[in-house]
Formats: sequence, C-alpha cells, structure tokens
Amino acid sequence: MKKYNFNAGPSMLPREVIENTAKQILNFNDSGLSLMEISHRAKDFQPVIDESVALIKELLDVPQGYSVIFLGGGASLQFTQVPCNLLHTKAAYLNTGVWAKKAMKEAKLYGEVLELASSEDKNYTYIPKDWTCPADIDYLHVTTNNTIYGTETRFDYDVPVLMVGDMSSDIFSREVDVAKYQCIYAGAQKNLAMAGVTVIIIKDDVLNKMTRPVPTMLNYFTHVDKGSMFNTPPVVPIYSALENLRWIKKNGGVKAMDKLAKQRAELLYGEIDRNKLFRGTVEEADRSLMNICFVMQDEYAELEKEFFDFATSKGMVGIKGHRSVGGFRASCYNAQTIEGVEALVSCMKEFEANH
Amino acid sequence: MKKYNFNAGPSMLPREVIENTAKQILNFNDSGLSLMEISHRAKDFQPVIDESVALIKELLDVPQGYSVIFLGGGASLQFTQVPCNLLHTKAAYLNTGVWAKKAMKEAKLYGEVLELASSEDKNYTYIPKDWTCPADIDYLHVTTNNTIYGTETRFDYDVPVLMVGDMSSDIFSREVDVAKYQCIYAGAQKNLAMAGVTVIIIKDDVLNKMTRPVPTMLNYFTHVDKGSMFNTPPVVPIYSALENLRWIKKNGGVKAMDKLAKQRAELLYGEIDRNKLFRGTVEEADRSLMNICFVMQDEYAELEKEFFDFATSKGMVGIKGHRSVGGFRASCYNAQTIEGVEALVSCMKEFEANH
Repeated sequence: MKKYNFNAGPSMLPREVIENTAKQILNFNDSGLSLMEISHRAKDFQPVIDESVALIKELLDVPQGYSVIFLGGGASLQFTQVPCNLLHTKAAYLNTGVWAKKAMKEAKLYGEVLELASSEDKNYTYIPKDWTCPADIDYLHVTTNNTIYGTETRFDYDVPVLMVGDMSSDIFSREVDVAKYQCIYAGAQKNLAMAGVTVIIIKDDVLNKMTRPVPTMLNYFTHVDKGSMFNTPPVVPIYSALENLRWIKKNGGVKAMDKLAKQRAELLYGEIDRNKLFRGTVEEADRSLMNICFVMQDEYAELEKEFFDFATSKGMVGIKGHRSVGGFRASCYNAQTIEGVEALVSCMKEFEANH
Repeated sequence: MKKYNFNAGPSMLPREVIENTAKQILNFNDSGLSLMEISHRAKDFQPVIDESVALIKELLDVPQGYSVIFLGGGASLQFTQVPCNLLHTKAAYLNTGVWAKKAMKEAKLYGEVLELASSEDKNYTYIPKDWTCPADIDYLHVTTNNTIYGTETRFDYDVPVLMVGDMSSDIFSREVDVAKYQCIYAGAQKNLAMAGVTVIIIKDDVLNKMTRPVPTMLNYFTHVDKGSMFNTPPVVPIYSALENLRWIKKNGGVKAMDKLAKQRAELLYGEIDRNKLFRGTVEEADRSLMNICFVMQDEYAELEKEFFDFATSKGMVGIKGHRSVGGFRASCYNAQTIEGVEALVSCMKEFEANH
C-alpha cells in the first residue's frame, strides 16, 4: 500500500532526493568511496558546500553582505547561539508557541528579554497582532511557522530593527525579504534535508560585535570565516540538503513551492471547513500552510481514535496531532504532493459518509 | 581499481555498514518510508537509540551510574560543553596537540585552567610523562589519540580525580576503564559513524551540579533526562553508528579491534622502520595505532610528491599528512583492513626498489 507521509519533522522528502543520497552513500561521485567516508577536506566535497550556499542565496534572493553557514545541533542550539552573538542589551520576542518560548528562556541568560506579545492565553491558536516594536532593541525574534499549533506568519514584518527569524518549518516555502533580518535559522529536517544540519543566514556586519566572551564554536564568525569547515561538518545531511535545493530549483523555486503550498492548503482546509465531523484549531487568518491542524467537532469527539485508525489503514502516516493540541496534524512541507493531500481528503469524506 | 581509504576523518567504514545504511535510506524497516523522513518520535526509531546505547555500554563495559547520549555539533562543541558543565573552579589539561589546546582555550572562559604538561615544544611528537596530577581540581582532560601527530595514550591514567577523555579518534579500538572518567566524548566520524553525531558517556552524579547558569542545550542533563530526544537528534548519523556498533560486536568487540589495530600497526610501522626512504615522526613509545605518520628520510625529501603520486596511482586515498606535520598519514581505524595496510606496504617496498 502506498504511504502518505504527513510527519511534522523529520518529514517527507522528494523521492529523487532520497534515491540520489542513497546512491552517493554507495559510491560518491564514482570515486569508489562512500559519501559517509570521504574527508570534508576532499576536493570533491567543497563543491557540495559551494553549490548548497549558492543555491540558498539564489532561491531566497539573499542580498549582498549575508553569509550562509551549516551547523550541527539543531534550531534548539540557535535559541542560545542567537542571543550569545546578538543580544547586547535587550531583545524582543513574539511568543507564538512553545519553540518561541524556549528561545526566550535561553535569551534571558544573556540580556533583557521583552515579550512583545503572546498568544499563550489561547494555547497559541493565533498570531498576536496588537503590538509595536520598539527601536531601541538589538533584534525582534519571530518564529515564522509554529509547527505544533499550525499558525504561520507568511510575510515579513515591517519593524524598526532587523529581525531574527526561526524559519525551521517554512523556509524555502515562500519568498522572504531577507534584508529585514540580521539572522535567519532553520533546522533542516522539515523543508530541507535529513535531520542533523541547521542552516544559518547571517548579516556579515553583525558578526563578531559581542563584547562579552563568546565560546569559539558558538561564535557565528568562526563558521563564516571558515566556510562551515572550522570543524567537521555533518557531511551527509548537508549533501541531502544540496539534493533538495536542486529539486526546489528544478521545480520552479520558492514561488512554485508557495503556489503548491496554497493549493494543498486550499484543498485540506476546504475539506476541514466543509466536513461536518471536523474543525480547524486556529484562527483562519493565521492558518499555517505547512502544518494543518484539525480536531473532531465536539459532538463527534469520541470518533477521534476511529478516524486515526481508518486513515492509517488507508496509508496516512504521522497525522496524529501534537499532544498539546490533540486531534490531527497534516504536515504539508514542500515535498508533500497534491495526491497525498487528496488521499487524506478522501479519507475524511469517506469517514464522514460512514457516520 | 580498488581504493584503500586512509582518510583521517570522516574515514573508512565497513562496507556492510555503508550498504545497510543506504538500504534503510531507501526503505526503513520495510515501512515504505525513508530513514531520512521518519519521525524521531516514531515507534521504530526508539529501538535504534536503545540498541545503540545498549551496545555502547556492552562494548565498553560501561559501569552502572553512567549515561550515554548522542549530540550534534562535533567534539569541538564539547570543548566548551565540558567546562560549561564540569569546570567549577579549576581543571587540568594535558596539551598533547592542537585539539587539546583548543579544548584548553575554551575551558578558560569558565574557570582556572592548569596546563599540566605539554609537548608543544617538539611539535607534539611525544606524550608528556613528567607530570603529577593534583587532587584539588574538577577534572583532568586528556586527548587519548592525537589524530594530527599520530601519538596515542593507549591506557587510562591513574590519577586522583575523575578524568574527561576526548576519545574521538580511538574510541572502540581498545578496552577502556570507563570508571576512571566522569565524561568521555567522541565525534563519530573516525571510529564510529558518518559525521554529524557525537557520543557522550557521562557519570550521572556529575550532572546538574553547576552553580552558574548553563544554557539548556549545553546542559548534559537535558539530554540524559530526555534520552537524546530533547530536540530532533541526527537520525541518520545515529543509525549509521548503530550499524557500526553491531559490526564491532559481530567481529569480536573492542578486544578484537585492539588486536587488529596492533597487527595493522606492526605491519606499517615495521615497514616504516625497515624502508630506507621513510621514517616515523613520533617517539616510538607514543606511536598511535590509529594514525600512522611518516615522512621521507631527509636525504630523500625531494621524493615526497613522487611517492604520493605513486601511492595514489595504486589506489591509496587520504595518505597526505596534515599540513602541520607534512609527509604522510595512514589512518587505520577499526574498519581498516590488513589487506589495505599490506597494499600500502607494497607501495612503499616497490617505491624503494625503484629508487
């Protein structure tokens, strides 16, 4: 039976990305060696880094004066690395979910943290809009997509400071005005690659400005200066990112990814709104195109497990909602197909007809 | 032509480890999904973590009261993470190479660092022996194998404090008395797995004892408490480690790896000492079994490039010495075969006969 992968992360990747990565693991560039056992200093690995950086800059139209680096440790390490490098005195955070809250917690070790607005009062079911960003702060931190709750800010705020953006779960799904950010970071395991690498896009003129001591490995400058080769980078995860960046470009770049995301979301939210058994969990205006969350209508609450089992029997994988929201979550990252979403919609229709 | 991989890291891995990893990337546990796109919270990934931890404990005979975790960021991140968690007041370091020196540099951000002894005076061509470890320190940090220079401490010191060991390049190649350490760390890309994961073995009763604030992601307790699942771990690198741990066990465990290491080293050092064109670079007593460094004898110095080209033409890969030592370095980690070493020895003999 065909499986449809709706995992929230690590998550679905295009089949050709998977197959090409497996092929290079067996024999890298026809060298007779595996991608797993080549030196990161080898002549044929440098082009992997170079092409990956070039494609990221091209796909996101990154302006001059920004660098792209690859690090290990995940976006969670960025929650401390960002303030360690960029929080001189005071920063503002939008508290739009648990990940944003974790980022705030770490920042407090380094300086004053202003919670500009929060939607915690309603379990993060909306993006706060009633706030004004002060100009006397080091940065405003935003989480552009909130994976757990299914809310998203699918545009770049106009604020009087340069932002820091956690784009772990929607990077490369839309055009981004990179010039509004001093730092964009993204754990790769949603829209980009296998788990194990984090992409950072950083403005060169914010590097190495911290007065307090910064551990070498946490200093962005270390990695910019050495082109992500200060120490051994995660070779295979980076290679899988390259394959996916090529796939994104071949398939029309982020504009095409954006269009596809809208098509998928229209199909699935359309069904959620039409189907009498289900309802969405977040405010319509803030619905994420990446993580589509829904629950049973109250009067059908007892059918939750039955629908889960039914959808699973039809090949749906990873649709269980996060425990803090419940119900269902269909993650629809770049690699998700219209066919996959249609298969889920069919399940929902069939289940409705059966009840 | 058959290639013989002498890369210093990332480095040679057993062919079945490579092939099994590639197979799981195409179809993980016959689930129809790739290892690259399964959730780390999936029911079938937890056994990967559990079996890996169990094998590490079994292979190194880890005593009760220690935990094993997998982190990203490489051993270089440990240079700051170790003192951040364990350096309360004062720690001692043995300066046996550039990596040890980098570890010392980071530790100085957290407390007093005592350089107990150093072999920097002779470009790290020996392991200092004339030192006494004080008892009033938090730990003694040792780098058991110095990858760049080819020196190794193939035993565990008797000192009045619990040590911290950077075993990145010789872990699982010998029996270790784990009880003498409070923390052992190892970047995986030499003796264990593809690059992108670091193994940490840590004594439970040193966890969470620091009085200064520790960033959440740098706190070992965070990861011990959550079984390496606080955030998304590097799924594929960890899987490749599991495959290699299984391979080590199947092939006789660390005792067998130790025996094989001695056989390889005897062959290669034997030839270096016999062959009139070459000489070893380090003191005999401190010769590494993992990284075997040699240069041309002075009177044949001009033949260096010619030998490199000759060996390359015979299938040798990665034998160029590190720039700070020059000459040649044959890295002989667990996966290196006697056949590979014999092929290199044949090159050396043939080259000698030609001159």
